[in-house]
Amino acid sequence: MIPFRFGKLGQDGAARHGIVHTARGQIRTPAFMPVGTAATVKAMLPASVASTGADIVLGNTYHLMLRPGAERIAGLGGLHRFMDWQKPILTDSGGFQVMSLSKLRKLSEDGVKFRSHIDGSEHFLSPERAMEIQRLLGSDIQMVLDECPAFPATEAEIEKSLALSMRWAARSKAAFGMQPERACFGIVQGGIYPHLRARSAEELQRIGFDGYAVGGLAVGEGQERMFDTLDATVPHLPTDRPRYLMGVGKPSDIVGAVLRGIDMFDCVLPTRSGRNGQAFTGRGAVNLRNARFADDPEPLDSACSCPACIGYSRAYLHHVVKAGEIIASMLLTWHNLQFFQDLMAGLRVAIAAGEVQAFARNFAARQGAEKDAAESVDPSPSAS
Amino acid sequence: MIPFRFGKLGQDGAARHGIVHTARGQIRTPAFMPVGTAATVKAMLPASVASTGADIVLGNTYHLMLRPGAERIAGLGGLHRFMDWQKPILTDSGGFQVMSLSKLRKLSEDGVKFRSHIDGSEHFLSPERAMEIQRLLGSDIQMVLDECPAFPATEAEIEKSLALSMRWAARSKAAFGMQPERACFGIVQGGIYPHLRARSAEELQRIGFDGYAVGGLAVGEGQERMFDTLDATVPHLPTDRPRYLMGVGKPSDIVGAVLRGIDMFDCVLPTRSGRNGQAFTGRGAVNLRNARFADDPEPLDSACSCPACIGYSRAYLHHVVKAGEIIASMLLTWHNLQFFQDLMAGLRVAIAAGEVQAFARNFAARQGAEKDAAESVDPSPSAS
Repeated sequence: MIPFRFGKLGQDGAARHGIVHTARGQIRTPAFMPVGTAATVKAMLPASVASTGADIVLGNTYHLMLRPGAERIAGLGGLHRFMDWQKPILTDSGGFQVMSLSKLRKLSEDGVKFRSHIDGSEHFLSPERAMEIQRLLGSDIQMVLDECPAFPATEAEIEKSLALSMRWAARSKAAFGMQPERACFGIVQGGIYPHLRARSAEELQRIGFDGYAVGGLAVGEGQERMFDTLDATVPHLPTDRPRYLMGVGKPSDIVGAVLRGIDMFDCVLPTRSGRNGQAFTGRGAVNLRNARFADDPEPLDSACSCPACIGYSRAYLHHVVKAGEIIASMLLTWHNLQFFQDLMAGLRVAIAAGEVQAFARNFAARQGAEKDAAESVDPSPSAS
Repeated sequence: MIPFRFGKLGQDGAARHGIVHTARGQIRTPAFMPVGTAATVKAMLPASVASTGADIVLGNTYHLMLRPGAERIAGLGGLHRFMDWQKPILTDSGGFQVMSLSKLRKLSEDGVKFRSHIDGSEHFLSPERAMEIQRLLGSDIQMVLDECPAFPATEAEIEKSLALSMRWAARSKAAFGMQPERACFGIVQGGIYPHLRARSAEELQRIGFDGYAVGGLAVGEGQERMFDTLDATVPHLPTDRPRYLMGVGKPSDIVGAVLRGIDMFDCVLPTRSGRNGQAFTGRGAVNLRNARFADDPEPLDSACSCPACIGYSRAYLHHVVKAGEIIASMLLTWHNLQFFQDLMAGLRVAIAAGEVQAFARNFAARQGAEKDAAESVDPSPSAS
């Protein structure tokens, strides 16, 4: 059995690269985790996800507890076997989706009562139940249950919410107990208020976690305030544990966050925008629905090695997007995941070479060359 | 350049097995052609289609002429390059879909005027234009334009329609001209009337075709009358050319038609029913939506080597079907295409061994073991 451990391999400014060792394999950081909400990374077979370079995927506790149910998945041998993904899985706690998707929520000190968005059935999620579900799923990295305040919120609201989240973090950790082959991550909250972020980071470290996530960002505050908040938060996190920015994000968000010392990311942007006909390329994002592609014989991105770029013209991709064909979702999702993984690989190499600033400058400069729609997609965190 | 040629390898009763040689590769017969309506076999990548054992796919002239357009595909290098499928492609003439899908049709001796079901635009299809479109697409096997009468129809209606189809067949062949690296197939019509089928088969042979299709079946006449019609038709077809039963069908239809001397088939049944949660297995058809599969840890079909059967439980397939996940369409389409190709491979081996009657009996006996819904799916011909 391989205990969970983060090994830092190098640093360039605040940016780090390393390896997260887990019982189910290694995660190269900085890492992007495709979102596999309902036990599938939408429109992808697991082998294809792995072929893009993904070392880990994210599963959503909220969706899986409602359908097909955590006990059912446990009875079938756990989430890895259920969805045929043998590499690491990180699961969220369900808290964010309860706030964003479910109906008729009732929050108490004990937990949150809510109705399923699928069938209206009533459910209850507490820190203890969130950890139990993640253990039933067999998750390799389990997240504490926290409260996710809406944006914007007053400082007083954030402070009150944060206090509850820190009490829930302690209960989550106690419920997680001792599972050396698995990890439990705390989540820093505190909105855009530096002193609350610092307090949250310190309180979590007193509890003690295997990794530290930054939550409550990418909810509408904008990139500048997100980066400001990271600048105010990351210095309060330990250097020997992985740092995970939840629900982020656009390629430029990821590059900026890596420069600020973040190691892990997840976002629905590549998968969801792929299903909407949008593609990320080295020259910027494009919308394949655009009529200018109807006769374009060129590949989507000549620098890309994915099946969409190797096998097809932009004209074909335009055609299948317009015709609503499933292969459009399959090819563009694959391409976007490949693009995100190639970006992470590029960042890792650049950090190792001490050239991450130049990499970030070049990446940003090239992104302007071909741009229309996809950067405007709203990457609602953690639910594909 | 390899000229089109049919090489018969063996015969067992009326059943034959052989190889159709084309410029783009060999087609092992009896052959099942997955339907790739709009330049994609729905929910499949071309490499996956090939991996099931498919030697040829079918493309729909009607759909492709409307979107993205035959001239556009020609400008992009032809249909093979457009859809990244380098093996043979058979295209229909568009006639069947004009009758079944388009609006405001007006039939004349010259051809048929119709409005697109996509955008209402007006189009005209004549025997000459149907052949021109198929040449623009780069089709390896091109079908004559025929008129497809509705079922039921009176003998007088069928006779009148047949006469027009035979005049159109002669014009189609003249328009096809000399293309030794490609094939032109005639289509036997005549409804369920043996003497009209015989007349049609003989008239087509006077024109002379590279292969002979049987059209106008699987339109509601039932399996018994379909088989009766084949019994009355096939003996009038030449033995040295491939015989293609259009739009058929259910596994039991295919087995029965092979026993009667048919070499080629196409049908939307495996792809369409896969997208509807239905799967074919050696023990019969099942509907994965059924609640009895919710906790079933067994593979869909333990005799199958497709990704759905290798990687997943019936419980997982039930879950993704219920959740409306794209992977459900991907996995069940793949499985169903694998099942159909395995059936064809089994038939070829059985014919070669002189055991096709025993194969057919065993296949039918095993199909009863697990049965609920999929055999009742209506396999509307030639449009996935």
